[in-house]
Amino acid sequence: MEETRTQTQQRLRPHAILWLDGLATEQRQDLLTVEEPLEIRLGGQPVAVLMRTPQDDFDLVAGFLYTEGMIGRPRDLGALCYCASARPPNLENIVEVHLATGVHFDLERFRRNFYASSSCGICGKASIEAIRAQAPPLVGNFRVRRDLLFTLDEQLRQGQAVFARTGSLHAAALFDPEGKLLVVREDVGRHNAVDKVIGTYVRAGQPPPPGVLMVSGRASFEIVQKALMAGIAVVAAVSAPSTLAVELARESGMTLVGFLRGQRANVYSGEQRLAG
Amino acid sequence: MEETRTQTQQRLRPHAILWLDGLATEQRQDLLTVEEPLEIRLGGQPVAVLMRTPQDDFDLVAGFLYTEGMIGRPRDLGALCYCASARPPNLENIVEVHLATGVHFDLERFRRNFYASSSCGICGKASIEAIRAQAPPLVGNFRVRRDLLFTLDEQLRQGQAVFARTGSLHAAALFDPEGKLLVVREDVGRHNAVDKVIGTYVRAGQPPPPGVLMVSGRASFEIVQKALMAGIAVVAAVSAPSTLAVELARESGMTLVGFLRGQRANVYSGEQRLAG
Repeated sequence: MEETRTQTQQRLRPHAILWLDGLATEQRQDLLTVEEPLEIRLGGQPVAVLMRTPQDDFDLVAGFLYTEGMIGRPRDLGALCYCASARPPNLENIVEVHLATGVHFDLERFRRNFYASSSCGICGKASIEAIRAQAPPLVGNFRVRRDLLFTLDEQLRQGQAVFARTGSLHAAALFDPEGKLLVVREDVGRHNAVDKVIGTYVRAGQPPPPGVLMVSGRASFEIVQKALMAGIAVVAAVSAPSTLAVELARESGMTLVGFLRGQRANVYSGEQRLAG
Repeated sequence: MEETRTQTQQRLRPHAILWLDGLATEQRQDLLTVEEPLEIRLGGQPVAVLMRTPQDDFDLVAGFLYTEGMIGRPRDLGALCYCASARPPNLENIVEVHLATGVHFDLERFRRNFYASSSCGICGKASIEAIRAQAPPLVGNFRVRRDLLFTLDEQLRQGQAVFARTGSLHAAALFDPEGKLLVVREDVGRHNAVDKVIGTYVRAGQPPPPGVLMVSGRASFEIVQKALMAGIAVVAAVSAPSTLAVELARESGMTLVGFLRGQRANVYSGEQRLAG
């Protein structure tokens, strides 16, 4: 079943509010960002529930499975469909994943591995090692010119359909090494926006091409982790990264840029990929 | 074992960066917000891993268990300790939870309930019903004066030790109905900051007193859910709420205020608790 647009797949919904300004009070309408749960089922079993903004759901699911290591290669993914077999059928908030012929997923083994890695001593270093053991080595040998880098935050803002109106949606975008916008996606969750960007390529059977992943807001460990799993060599954020995000980027040879605003930026790692 | 301050429990750590400003480049030091994983163990079993800013870890764990419904009453919580029994001992990133005498927790039942509720049709309405079935009814009969409401965002900012310096920590605070700051907590994750605030009361064996929970940034479903589970009747946010946050607040009789900045605010639900 192809992706359909229903009411909940609109990203904005009007709500009546009371607007306070000093002593004044007015009845107004506000546009709210839609947030709804999405359940991912694999082999009939629920594997995750994501709170997301409905739209590009199949991109989100494909990206999530890939960046969380549930599928090893984009071509391991078969068909995605809204769950017509649920009782009652759920065509909006449950996505059923079918793997490619011959590919199997062992949910219990996935869970056991997760706990096995954490039982031997959980800490930032162990988290980094666990990701690095799974992620492909970075192969991005390109360089990004500084003047192109400085165009990305404005391009991201212009690519966002909704953010400017509500201030409540995060965005992620992939740019090629020449600074050309390839894909932009929005979501109430920043990590979901990243998965949607990556998932557009996974659904086409390949990892994202070499380029720069730009996110609105901050760069947490999770954002860098997802980029690394997808082989993305350069990540830029409008705001600050965390310690663990920087450490993962440094140990993986990723270029991580923060506070990218207009003509300014902080480079936290991998400056060899920046030119000019 | 009491909470100790070790290196990873500092919230900021300096990192060498390259600072770009137009064509200029400088070596500088930047202060990064610390992010580290925290594993929660209950009866020796891992129940969750949170990416958090180390500090107030026991508040975080107590609040998390309570707002996620893993313990039904604050007095169900026994002792918390860093996991000295792990091999090797982990005194920073694993917290072992002991329940009060006579209280049992069934992890498998918790997991089954989660999946049972989602298998009968996942959607925003089902999510709201699941929370409302678990949360106590709101008993906040107090009213908050508008002039007091308008002081909260500035008080939150002043209560934040770190945010102003790095721009990367979220904050949550509880105010009493007279607008007096009771508790403020910071974390790289907004939901963690909320759990830390609530957890300070849970550790003392009681739910939070009547008041206003204020969060930096946006109000997602998860934030409203956590407040509701803790019986907090008024939630205010610096930025926008999502549709599902507003729906949960409305159906629960919670007062939800967004875009609270200086003398302005949007009231999304529960205006009966606002006076003046």
